[in-house]
Amino acid sequence: MPTYTPPLRDMQFVLHEVLDVTAALQAMPAHAEIDADTVNAVLEEGGKFAAGVIQPLNAPGDAEGCTLDKATHTVHAPQGFKEAYAQYVAGGWPALSCDPAYGGQGLPVTLNQCLYEMLNSANQAWTMYPGLTHGAYECLHAHGTPEQQALYLPKLTSGHWTGTMCLTEPHCGTDLGLLRSKAEPLADGSYRITGQKIFISAGDHELAENIIHLVLARLPDAPAGSKGISLFVVPKFLVHADGSLGARNAIVCTGLEHKMGIHGNATCQMALDGALGTLVGEPNKGLAAMFVMMNAARLGVGMQSLGLTEVAYQNAVAYAKDRLQMRSLTGAKAADKPADPIIVHPDVRKMLLTARAYAEGGRALAVYTALQLDHELSHPDEDVRRAAADEVALLTPIVKAFLTDNAWLATSHCLQVYGGHGYIREWGMEQFVRDARINMIYEGTNTIQSLDLLGRKVLGDGGKKLKAFGRKVAAFVEDEGVDEAMQEFVNPLADLGDKVTKLSTELGFKGMGNADEVGAAAVDYLRVCGHLVFAYFFARMAKVALAKQADPATAGDPFYTAKLATARFYFAKLLPETASLIRSARAGSASLMALDEALF
Amino acid sequence: MPTYTPPLRDMQFVLHEVLDVTAALQAMPAHAEIDADTVNAVLEEGGKFAAGVIQPLNAPGDAEGCTLDKATHTVHAPQGFKEAYAQYVAGGWPALSCDPAYGGQGLPVTLNQCLYEMLNSANQAWTMYPGLTHGAYECLHAHGTPEQQALYLPKLTSGHWTGTMCLTEPHCGTDLGLLRSKAEPLADGSYRITGQKIFISAGDHELAENIIHLVLARLPDAPAGSKGISLFVVPKFLVHADGSLGARNAIVCTGLEHKMGIHGNATCQMALDGALGTLVGEPNKGLAAMFVMMNAARLGVGMQSLGLTEVAYQNAVAYAKDRLQMRSLTGAKAADKPADPIIVHPDVRKMLLTARAYAEGGRALAVYTALQLDHELSHPDEDVRRAAADEVALLTPIVKAFLTDNAWLATSHCLQVYGGHGYIREWGMEQFVRDARINMIYEGTNTIQSLDLLGRKVLGDGGKKLKAFGRKVAAFVEDEGVDEAMQEFVNPLADLGDKVTKLSTELGFKGMGNADEVGAAAVDYLRVCGHLVFAYFFARMAKVALAKQADPATAGDPFYTAKLATARFYFAKLLPETASLIRSARAGSASLMALDEALF
Repeated sequence: MPTYTPPLRDMQFVLHEVLDVTAALQAMPAHAEIDADTVNAVLEEGGKFAAGVIQPLNAPGDAEGCTLDKATHTVHAPQGFKEAYAQYVAGGWPALSCDPAYGGQGLPVTLNQCLYEMLNSANQAWTMYPGLTHGAYECLHAHGTPEQQALYLPKLTSGHWTGTMCLTEPHCGTDLGLLRSKAEPLADGSYRITGQKIFISAGDHELAENIIHLVLARLPDAPAGSKGISLFVVPKFLVHADGSLGARNAIVCTGLEHKMGIHGNATCQMALDGALGTLVGEPNKGLAAMFVMMNAARLGVGMQSLGLTEVAYQNAVAYAKDRLQMRSLTGAKAADKPADPIIVHPDVRKMLLTARAYAEGGRALAVYTALQLDHELSHPDEDVRRAAADEVALLTPIVKAFLTDNAWLATSHCLQVYGGHGYIREWGMEQFVRDARINMIYEGTNTIQSLDLLGRKVLGDGGKKLKAFGRKVAAFVEDEGVDEAMQEFVNPLADLGDKVTKLSTELGFKGMGNADEVGAAAVDYLRVCGHLVFAYFFARMAKVALAKQADPATAGDPFYTAKLATARFYFAKLLPETASLIRSARAGSASLMALDEALF
Repeated sequence: MPTYTPPLRDMQFVLHEVLDVTAALQAMPAHAEIDADTVNAVLEEGGKFAAGVIQPLNAPGDAEGCTLDKATHTVHAPQGFKEAYAQYVAGGWPALSCDPAYGGQGLPVTLNQCLYEMLNSANQAWTMYPGLTHGAYECLHAHGTPEQQALYLPKLTSGHWTGTMCLTEPHCGTDLGLLRSKAEPLADGSYRITGQKIFISAGDHELAENIIHLVLARLPDAPAGSKGISLFVVPKFLVHADGSLGARNAIVCTGLEHKMGIHGNATCQMALDGALGTLVGEPNKGLAAMFVMMNAARLGVGMQSLGLTEVAYQNAVAYAKDRLQMRSLTGAKAADKPADPIIVHPDVRKMLLTARAYAEGGRALAVYTALQLDHELSHPDEDVRRAAADEVALLTPIVKAFLTDNAWLATSHCLQVYGGHGYIREWGMEQFVRDARINMIYEGTNTIQSLDLLGRKVLGDGGKKLKAFGRKVAAFVEDEGVDEAMQEFVNPLADLGDKVTKLSTELGFKGMGNADEVGAAAVDYLRVCGHLVFAYFFARMAKVALAKQADPATAGDPFYTAKLATARFYFAKLLPETASLIRSARAGSASLMALDEALF
């Protein structure tokens, strides 16, 4: 059975030593009181909950799965999930980064994201129950009417109610413009909604007293396509004006999906048969309102994969130190034992270090992006808010797609470290791989993320957002270019920065002539950008580590030795992937589009 | 539910048009009578069995799995497996490439490999029951005593009995030198064997009347390590001298593994408690005898992954033509429908073409390697046999590791084409991914394959085997270098050939100074060699396709259009991976070995 130790030291390194988050947050009135001790204490307690309460439920929850009582349309989550959720609510965790106006603790998003990394390491399937709730909270917080906010936000904040996103229908997932669910207006201003939804994560369960569904549907007079979609809030149990629960609403789970992984989360087919709901935001502007939730969810999916990468790494390391098999190619290293631990073998180390670098690089990127989100949400200066919003928009598809692709690679490598045992359920590694697979698909497939990045975020504004980020990279390169010890990190970073600039320009020109050039290059392009961002953060982390090693007070701390070793590994063995990606991106669309559909 | 159509046309293309196998085989007395019609008829019938009989059992077998009756130590395979196996035996399929001296049909290995590709596309878990039998047959055919051969080979040939390989023990997999099972000699020349084995595929079941286990164990006076391992044949039911079955032997299944995939195959924990067996080959030379079986099994694992790549591709194509979602970036392609089929999108095509190119390249390599194996086994000229054996030795780790890594990538891409539906069991794609994962592990992990290739097969003989293959590539490049139409294929092939030569030399020098340099580069090196081999075969296939297009009799055949498009895609989008691999291989071992074990 896998174990999990919250990576508090590395989180603290990123938060305090690399990003100095408390100083950044203190510049915002909403977070003026934050200090490092609070941050560390919250993470320590969150880590205890993750490792102590929900991690032990992960493998049993996978084996048991969810069950649906078809007579009552009631879904039962695996044993222990409900009790763990009650503990989570009692501990006040759902409220961590929620608005104090609704009972929230008002702590920064940055802290909540770190909490979610740990929850996901411990149990991704369980974490989706509160995770989707937080998305519903954000959507209603941004777009709900005062009445909706008063009715729903306190209970979503406390976690007594949970939330869902009801978007997908059998014939439409990526292309929501095709959706058919209908909303019929009633005299009192509410709506009766009818339709079929599928793939609704946490769609039904008994963890909470009520479930607040955010549902996309069409008004009777709605234009066709994606410009005719509205958003509704549809509670499982109707809510009286005083907040008490009323009748069961006509939105029920009619089936559970049988999935490759995340068995502990109920993936529901939902039938709405004249379910009562109220409109969120403006008519026909539902997609825009839903995208508040979707962008948060995309960052959340990145945290899921970061969590899986970290926990898979930890377990593979423990196995590699314990398992004795063969001698080192350079002679016995544990001569007193019948064989050497497999961590002596270069390729075992390569697999482990790949997972480690993806975890550490991913953590730096994710925390940085969350901090920018705090700037966007809470900074008093509008220019700062706008610049931060641009950066979050640019980085969100990278967090989502790069971290989830990396987790697929990393969890598979970590499984491989176990040899045949990695394929056996009891060791738990294959669950991480199966769970990781969905993250490349939901909340917008990774292809969609790449089109969002290249087509919308980069080319869509003439490269403005990318250039702004590039200026940060360039400034760092210029600052550190004079430091001999930083050359090994700064030179490849600068080189890759130049290549990204050149590639972006090229693709912009090619895309103007033929839009398929954008579609053909986008996935490769996103990974190149992912590496640029990772190279930037590994260089920044190396800078801090070198400085700490030069400081007599911290010179002996092996944490910095390890950080530098991981950074050097990243530049030596992972960054080179960009050479192939750039060649493939440049190879264009012709070889993809040449084959007639009938000849496939 | 997935469907499967045997790729007979592409098999015939590789067999007849690219490799001209009947002419090659007719040069061998054992195969003098072979003709193309026989080859095609056998494949057509084999394809019918695969698609019609065992493919429908694939998804149900995955859902049901195997069960063990602990009281009787009897394993039950999924419903229908036994009846399908009876049909397979009745059809004479187990005997296809077996020795006529034991009732075999004496057909070439090449044909058997093509059959196995189809069986594995249809149902990898089922195919492992006869697949391991064929390995046991080959081992006893090469190393058994005349008595053992007379007793066991006819029934293994007919398929009435099946076989297993009992190598792994709880504490040893890769490092068989650690194994502990003991063999105690008896006065009559037989042995009593005692020990625990794990991960024994098809270790027990009721498909056949008897199961012939090939078991590694130590004699009492055996030297320590891998030089003290002997091989024994241990039947489930003892066999009288007249071939009739006697008492149940003391080798029983004590547990079934719960695995990520291949649920339909019984992966057994086996306990031997003084089980009676006889020695195969010489005392303490068991590993060498077992390697006959292991090499065959490694090629067999390559066929498993080739089969999965092909069937995943076929289904993803069907889905991509059917699923309507979004419009093409270059404007609506199916304006009469609510959206375009997703096959219009460049990245969907990239995922599909990746799987297609890996299937077609893999098929060419696998059939070629099988043909070389036929040369090794059956050619009258000893020099030809020796050269063929060298080539098989060189290509076997590439077939095993490159094809299985590619299948992991390809099946995952094909799952991704389905979006969220790919994650749902009923669509069948996630089973292909789960089944494909074991192929990178068993019969020697892919890291072990890479060390076998670089350490033993390439550097171990000073590059002799590699140079021999390189001369074939160079001759092709020279022949085709004058053809303008072939430039796009021959130039990158020649370039990669030069790079492989240079890289091999470099790694040889570095490895002499530090053996970890070999271990650090081997996995990257194997993939570079895999691409060299694929580039060679895609160039050869392109040459044939260009010639057929220039021939008025075949000019209109769209098969050749598609073949050229796939080859061009391969060179444009997949071959560039070598740029990164070579950089990573050159980056050496320092960044892998720097981190102290305690700091992981």
